[in-house]
Amino acid sequence: MEEKLNKKNHYNMLYSYYQNLLTEKQKEVFENYYFEDYSISEISECLDVSRNAVWDLLKKVEINLDNYEKKLRLHQKNVDRNLQLELLKKYVNDKGLQIIEKIEEME
Amino acid sequence: MEEKLNKKNHYNMLYSYYQNLLTEKQKEVFENYYFEDYSISEISECLDVSRNAVWDLLKKVEINLDNYEKKLRLHQKNVDRNLQLELLKKYVNDKGLQIIEKIEEME
Repeated sequence: MEEKLNKKNHYNMLYSYYQNLLTEKQKEVFENYYFEDYSISEISECLDVSRNAVWDLLKKVEINLDNYEKKLRLHQKNVDRNLQLELLKKYVNDKGLQIIEKIEEME
Repeated sequence: MEEKLNKKNHYNMLYSYYQNLLTEKQKEVFENYYFEDYSISEISECLDVSRNAVWDLLKKVEINLDNYEKKLRLHQKNVDRNLQLELLKKYVNDKGLQIIEKIEEME
């Protein structure tokens, strides 16, 4: 159960960075499964394709998302940057804090 | 001449963000042309492929790089972030400045 939740969080997070590199079909199936919590059976009925096709597509999207992170490291860079921004907050006044918050909202 | 230089700077810049999404072959030809300043004829002789093939591959890489930027906007985000970091420098002491420089080096 916890593992399933971790996996879900992991791919939701990667999706937020790389969704624009996926096809419309991949996005549709991903969102149905990960955001709307539809089962593979429900998605296959709704889209009128086999359960295997849905399963394969989901696997492919997961592999793609992991590959993009391996190649571009956008999530990891964001984590590293946010750590430094958090540190920086100790050394600024209110005006500086506003700018830091603006930078944090950018990604 | 200036236009050619602008184009060169443009793709060198995009390449710095997205090179890991290209194939080994694409990287090799891109670097020969854009970094080493080899002509299309020289690259085609060196790799023993037609000049058309080199030309097509370069065009494809340029289209890919522009598409990645359109989809992920890593360069534009970096420009926006650096503008804010530059602003922020007015509001920090030496310790804070060090952290900002560390963040700037990250991308």
